[in-house]
Amino acid sequence: MEKLIYRVQAANSLLCVGLDPVGDDAQVARRLAEVIDQTSEYAAAFKPNLAFFLSRENGVQLLRETVQRIPESIPVILDGKFGDIANTADQYAKFAYDVVGADGVTVNPYMGDDAIVPFARPGKLVFVLAKTSNKPIHSLQDVALTRGGSLSDCAASVARKLDEQHGGIGLVVGATNAEAVARLRRLTPEQWFLVPGVGAQGGDLATTLRAGLRPDGSGLLINTSRALWQAENAAAAARELVEQINQLRPVAV
Amino acid sequence: MEKLIYRVQAANSLLCVGLDPVGDDAQVARRLAEVIDQTSEYAAAFKPNLAFFLSRENGVQLLRETVQRIPESIPVILDGKFGDIANTADQYAKFAYDVVGADGVTVNPYMGDDAIVPFARPGKLVFVLAKTSNKPIHSLQDVALTRGGSLSDCAASVARKLDEQHGGIGLVVGATNAEAVARLRRLTPEQWFLVPGVGAQGGDLATTLRAGLRPDGSGLLINTSRALWQAENAAAAARELVEQINQLRPVAV
Repeated sequence: MEKLIYRVQAANSLLCVGLDPVGDDAQVARRLAEVIDQTSEYAAAFKPNLAFFLSRENGVQLLRETVQRIPESIPVILDGKFGDIANTADQYAKFAYDVVGADGVTVNPYMGDDAIVPFARPGKLVFVLAKTSNKPIHSLQDVALTRGGSLSDCAASVARKLDEQHGGIGLVVGATNAEAVARLRRLTPEQWFLVPGVGAQGGDLATTLRAGLRPDGSGLLINTSRALWQAENAAAAARELVEQINQLRPVAV
Repeated sequence: MEKLIYRVQAANSLLCVGLDPVGDDAQVARRLAEVIDQTSEYAAAFKPNLAFFLSRENGVQLLRETVQRIPESIPVILDGKFGDIANTADQYAKFAYDVVGADGVTVNPYMGDDAIVPFARPGKLVFVLAKTSNKPIHSLQDVALTRGGSLSDCAASVARKLDEQHGGIGLVVGATNAEAVARLRRLTPEQWFLVPGVGAQGGDLATTLRAGLRPDGSGLLINTSRALWQAENAAAAARELVEQINQLRPVAV
């Protein structure tokens, strides 16, 4: 997590700039470049969403160019929600780190720890889905376990154990359920949370920060995608978000 | 499921040919063509594994060429284990069906039903991970739920409900745990199971078929990847597997 921690301090920011490119191919390449260039000063991390690239012609090439455009000092988390058995996870890790050039990934815990470990290379960031920002009718994450707690709690403890063994493992915790943020923070007091769901998806920023920040005023990456993509002035929108977040942090690090 | 059912009957086969290409790029393109051409006669379906393509230069192009080489009558299931919120799942569906040209996908249920529904287009096949073939130390799939059953049972019932609503939804059920195959068959008597884990991963064919076949002698797709990829004569190896499977089917359909 060193690169992330260093960047968070250098930029004084917990903002993660999500890149979910929509629009036609020519527009998208131009807009990606604009958003990156305009928000880099304020970004603690960038998070390109794999699906929005794969759905295009030459999407992997566009993804590589996107990652190359991002300044070296800013971590890039490839949001692929990968989850497969170890020999397949090895191939996804090769894709994310060696082909795309990302510094981290999101992973799905459904297939257990051997689907996660291949991504835990030294210096890389792995965010394990615990509680996501959507509200499906049939949800697995909230089912209650006989051992106590919900499935998302169980995913969080798997992630914590793996972090103790390998380092670099955080959680994905959606902002749309503040109680879950608070509960998962109690279960994993130290770990970094990547937090989608503020803004378009309805999560409240102040509530989320109150529930999820560590006592040192850090430990969260607040992701925003659509609000910055659609902003007339992405730089101003990013700066404003960082200021809003920082006003709500108990201690500036 | 019409295309699959028709193909299973036409080829008198429950064999799914997994394509997990290993080797250098030139070798791989040649070997993919060989394996497809030699096993097509015997294949009920093909299952390219997305990770093994993405980890290569021009992997998406190779994947498209691979799918194009497969005869139109044989369903292609893109094994991507996709799982993300609805607007992102839409993009993965676009990738799998429109860019790659697949007839079906594998999906991960951790994010709930809205991560699955976008793949349920008319005529497409969606296999939801229930019990996978790996044996991780920390597994989520086997945790016991207060409502009864394990998480994999819960995933199976979500899949069954979605199948009733949308059609075309099956399960992924690994061959490495015959008790789980039998239990999931009881929970979902009608649904198609895509079954990895026979062969290299240690699942026994006869036990799996006994546990998972429906009374009509069908409802399973037995996937084999490495055994066919490494076979000196892939045609003979595929024919032999189909014969082995058919000898164990109570009724030839």
